[in-house]
Amino acid sequence: MTVPFSFQLTATDGQARLGSIATSRGAIRTPAFMPIATAGAIKGVGWDDVVAAGADIVLGNTYHLMLRPTAERIAALGGLHKFTGWSRPILTDSGGFQVMSLSELRKVEEAAVTFRSHIDGALVELSPERSIEIQTLLGADISMQLDECIRLPAPAADVERAMRLSLRWAERSKRAFGDSPGRALFGIVQGGDDRALRVESARALASIGFHGYAIGGLAVGEPQEVMLSIIEETAPHLPADKPHYLMGVGTPDDLVEAVARGIDMFDCVLPTRNGRHGTAFTRFGPINMKNARHVDDPRPLDEESRCPAARDFSRAYLCHLVRSNELLGQILLSTINLYYYQDVMAGMRAAIAEHRFDAFRREIKEGWARGDLAPR
Amino acid sequence: MTVPFSFQLTATDGQARLGSIATSRGAIRTPAFMPIATAGAIKGVGWDDVVAAGADIVLGNTYHLMLRPTAERIAALGGLHKFTGWSRPILTDSGGFQVMSLSELRKVEEAAVTFRSHIDGALVELSPERSIEIQTLLGADISMQLDECIRLPAPAADVERAMRLSLRWAERSKRAFGDSPGRALFGIVQGGDDRALRVESARALASIGFHGYAIGGLAVGEPQEVMLSIIEETAPHLPADKPHYLMGVGTPDDLVEAVARGIDMFDCVLPTRNGRHGTAFTRFGPINMKNARHVDDPRPLDEESRCPAARDFSRAYLCHLVRSNELLGQILLSTINLYYYQDVMAGMRAAIAEHRFDAFRREIKEGWARGDLAPR
Repeated sequence: MTVPFSFQLTATDGQARLGSIATSRGAIRTPAFMPIATAGAIKGVGWDDVVAAGADIVLGNTYHLMLRPTAERIAALGGLHKFTGWSRPILTDSGGFQVMSLSELRKVEEAAVTFRSHIDGALVELSPERSIEIQTLLGADISMQLDECIRLPAPAADVERAMRLSLRWAERSKRAFGDSPGRALFGIVQGGDDRALRVESARALASIGFHGYAIGGLAVGEPQEVMLSIIEETAPHLPADKPHYLMGVGTPDDLVEAVARGIDMFDCVLPTRNGRHGTAFTRFGPINMKNARHVDDPRPLDEESRCPAARDFSRAYLCHLVRSNELLGQILLSTINLYYYQDVMAGMRAAIAEHRFDAFRREIKEGWARGDLAPR
Repeated sequence: MTVPFSFQLTATDGQARLGSIATSRGAIRTPAFMPIATAGAIKGVGWDDVVAAGADIVLGNTYHLMLRPTAERIAALGGLHKFTGWSRPILTDSGGFQVMSLSELRKVEEAAVTFRSHIDGALVELSPERSIEIQTLLGADISMQLDECIRLPAPAADVERAMRLSLRWAERSKRAFGDSPGRALFGIVQGGDDRALRVESARALASIGFHGYAIGGLAVGEPQEVMLSIIEETAPHLPADKPHYLMGVGTPDDLVEAVARGIDMFDCVLPTRNGRHGTAFTRFGPINMKNARHVDDPRPLDEESRCPAARDFSRAYLCHLVRSNELLGQILLSTINLYYYQDVMAGMRAAIAEHRFDAFRREIKEGWARGDLAPR
């Protein structure tokens, strides 16, 4: 049954927002964190564990999937949900960000961006219309407009040119998307670290009209305070009755600070990427499991965790697996991190509902600041 | 509660044997296949899935664990079962085979083998007594004597020297093991491809007296018919009332042929190693999931499989994961293979119980010979 895409704001606490997005494939509780299924899989974590961790939605990467196995192939196989076995909502990005970060020989023109595939060197063209077509073939519940995301710092003229191109691509994306019952299209605010450009971009997108609004081009190397101040200036200009999505962010602290500034949705590779490299995210802050302090420690990572792996295995075992470069170490830490990220989101949602977001924010930061358990 | 180690032979069908090994940590149904937890983890498969696959026992590698995290550390943490969370029986090898295959600068002398660690280059000495000490610290349910395993082909004099050294080490291992209630020590037959040496080794070990008898030094590159003919000549000289363990073997076909010749226990890296490299073992034979024939195939790998991953995902998805080098592909194929190996063992056990082992052997080989499903 097709459920119209809709966003309901349930409660606010300061700028922090509690809400729910309705889709044909189930509800997305916001603030929401989307684990990243780059090529149609969460790296190192089985789908059952993604569900158990508490994720309502995952993100798939258009750039990777268009190159392999191709959007047409996935469509012929019944779409990305059927292909992967993940039956809940999926957001796909537009491919623009990975074109900039992964491909070679890219050429950005008004009509489209042209690049060479990082897999086989093939020349590929991606236009706003083609990006929408791909995301439609994939069967995304939420599609993103193609944008140009530039690295910071960048000359002011480049930032402005990319923002204006992204706006024109936003209009073309909306036209290409048309009326797709039950599916949503989000616009993306660009403008680098220029507040005036960000506000102009947000307002222009709002006047085009989207199902949701993303802030792109952040978490590209700038200090956290720069990112937060741009969110602070931009979020108030996003339509309040639509979801606000901060792309590619971030650390648990980033998530809390961004929710405090009115953000509803996030995606980031950190929980799985850092898990693969031996870092556990916990209520004690990030913990480097390679550290010698853990080698003889029989205690679990966190006996109060909801994640079985954080309770059932000793720190000594996790440390041994990481040091031995065992796949099981990558699997367990990635899973632990996905649980913790979802726990942070659930904690924020509960706190907003009870109008104690500031207390939650203070307490969770105090936990991180205290750091890990004292060595035994 | 300490249960005395014992082996009960329940049924025979030709040379094939159905039995059960009692241990303090649970029964081991034989013929048994032991997945390999080299460094205290099955590569790419969580412990819950190892249990669900149907394994009664796993193998841990003394060589890896003595170097990292060290046997003393694992003992201080409560032993290998507590360390890993695997509460069922564990067999540990003696370390001898990996010393030969992984380490550098090894020197085999009467007293001990000396080698350099492949991890940090440290000089390490491993004597029969030290190997038993390590396996006892790990808390193995079944320990193996230290032996010298040489590569084939080898000069006859070298094969004989290694066999006789292994016999002297068998006596020292038995003395060092002493009386360990509830724990077992297995001797290892050596002798290369020399039938007379093999028989002499088997008889000498039997007169020393062990809880079980292994055939070592096979599956080291010789053709299958050589391996099978050595098993054929050796197995009748192993005490019939004790388990017979063929070390490091093999393919599903090897397992069936070896059971047909009186073998009860196996270990091998193939299901997980080949799974990591894209091969699925199935009732259709081994399937290379990278193959282009699968890229558009919506069918499951095997709709009749007991393994959820073989039923719930399309061949197209598994192929995509392998081609994309996604961790999830390694995880799913390793899991599928562990299930299939256990299914082969369960099939053999049921067939022996019903005195239809020959029919089972013919039918399973016919399935492998027919090969994979026809392309759609």
